[in-house]
Amino acid sequence: MSVTSQRLSTTKDYQELLDKYDTWLFDCDGVLWRGTTLIDGAKEFLQLLRSKKKDVIFVTNNATNSRASYKTKFDKLGIEAHVDEVFGSAYAAAVYLSSVIKFPKDKKVFVIGQSGLEEELRNEGITYVGGTDVNDNTLEPFQPSSYTPDPSIGAVLCGLDMAINYTKLSKAFIHLNTDPSCLFLATNTDSTYPAQGGVLLPGAGSISAPLRFALGREPLSLGKPSQVMLDCIKAKHNFDPKKTIMVGDRLNTDIQFGKEGGLSTLLVLTGISREEDLAPERSPPAIPDYITNSIGDLRQGNIN
Amino acid sequence: MSVTSQRLSTTKDYQELLDKYDTWLFDCDGVLWRGTTLIDGAKEFLQLLRSKKKDVIFVTNNATNSRASYKTKFDKLGIEAHVDEVFGSAYAAAVYLSSVIKFPKDKKVFVIGQSGLEEELRNEGITYVGGTDVNDNTLEPFQPSSYTPDPSIGAVLCGLDMAINYTKLSKAFIHLNTDPSCLFLATNTDSTYPAQGGVLLPGAGSISAPLRFALGREPLSLGKPSQVMLDCIKAKHNFDPKKTIMVGDRLNTDIQFGKEGGLSTLLVLTGISREEDLAPERSPPAIPDYITNSIGDLRQGNIN
Repeated sequence: MSVTSQRLSTTKDYQELLDKYDTWLFDCDGVLWRGTTLIDGAKEFLQLLRSKKKDVIFVTNNATNSRASYKTKFDKLGIEAHVDEVFGSAYAAAVYLSSVIKFPKDKKVFVIGQSGLEEELRNEGITYVGGTDVNDNTLEPFQPSSYTPDPSIGAVLCGLDMAINYTKLSKAFIHLNTDPSCLFLATNTDSTYPAQGGVLLPGAGSISAPLRFALGREPLSLGKPSQVMLDCIKAKHNFDPKKTIMVGDRLNTDIQFGKEGGLSTLLVLTGISREEDLAPERSPPAIPDYITNSIGDLRQGNIN
Repeated sequence: MSVTSQRLSTTKDYQELLDKYDTWLFDCDGVLWRGTTLIDGAKEFLQLLRSKKKDVIFVTNNATNSRASYKTKFDKLGIEAHVDEVFGSAYAAAVYLSSVIKFPKDKKVFVIGQSGLEEELRNEGITYVGGTDVNDNTLEPFQPSSYTPDPSIGAVLCGLDMAINYTKLSKAFIHLNTDPSCLFLATNTDSTYPAQGGVLLPGAGSISAPLRFALGREPLSLGKPSQVMLDCIKAKHNFDPKKTIMVGDRLNTDIQFGKEGGLSTLLVLTGISREEDLAPERSPPAIPDYITNSIGDLRQGNIN
């Protein structure tokens, strides 16, 4: 593992990078776009990769969209993408339940999350309650005396939920606090996410924060840097880790994810992490192999 | 400061305790009652104190009720109490703003909390937004592009709010994240509270957890063990700390509060903390001077 990063700068640096890696994994927000605005050169570089027959995979901790609905974001921005190239944390959570732990068919998941998460669970044959159920989307006072916990609920799964409320939080808490066998899962633990216009808003990790604080324990998180996400990709795509690179904007998710998976890593500075976050005194969670300002720089690797 | 606690057991122990202290401070939930059920003997012991002309003060971290509305709880349970004997964390927060830091008259507080907190702020002449405002009590998606932060908002105050939602959390986060001069206050940081039937539900500390996690910092908390609460009591009541005892069920709120204020402390075992929590390996936040099973035991101090 490298302990310092190579700062890419010359045309030769970019040419060598393009030659070296056959499979390119990309985080999306902060790398390809910010909110609804494309990063300059992102579209052209992705076209370049496809013209050179490279494999392209998109790996996002976005948990509010299914892979299918997330693909429409690419469509709107004019970026070529295919559903089987898109991996989200909602999908990783559903695959973890269905394939990794083989969640019993007679058990249900209590969901704090949106329709995209529910869609991925349905696709994997997982039964769920909560989520977008109208009975759980209320600001009326929660009455514990009128709630009988369903013993078939075997897990609480928490993602970003913009309809978070006290009833959902209380039901999830009651299950986790009174049933030691109930699993505590999270799509991801990102504290914030960039919304429209780059405005930061509370992320999935902030939505699970009340449960984590009330319970005094952490969920198993299935988004980056969890290797469950990489296992999901491996199940669908063949790639040689030595010839694969993860491109991302966050040290504690993207770069750590790539490092732990034995991939090479490239940090771009168009999102959350800054070059000064790599200083030893900041105890960076992972050091990228390469750094460049923006994905647009990588177009310099085209020697044709 | 004592490093071990005296376990009260004999009639003489209780007689000496009753003789020694002129002012008795009580936590309520877990000490006088649990949910809506009186602790056996609580009413009788309070009557005994009054018959002996002791001063009685009730100190609660409950932030959903104003002092006036909290008094109705005493009335319903048949316990004599007067509004000026009741001190809650909503009141402490309001007094902190009005009297301790003299919050500017042209500034507003963004409230995450219920009507009792708003009532205490109004009583202290503090202007607020958020709280029970119908525009902030919605499960509709929050649109940052349609929210223009009001620069006159100088503080976010977070208490227990059973109508917590993403709009309130997002607005509070935007103010705290983008305005370094905006104060971050909490009525208290209790992780849970006992609701009807003793069912634990997420408490005020869990409601502020999304903001704490998204911001990466802690609010100033004004409930027990904060000494702001004791300052509020001192402003209204004369008492000699040497002749004053705090009776509570939580080491990290009640007992720590009393200790830091130079009062004697008595732990009762009818609420959250257990005797084994005092073991050195559990690093107890404070050691009470006395321990007894229940407030009902204290009736034995009556030698008439």
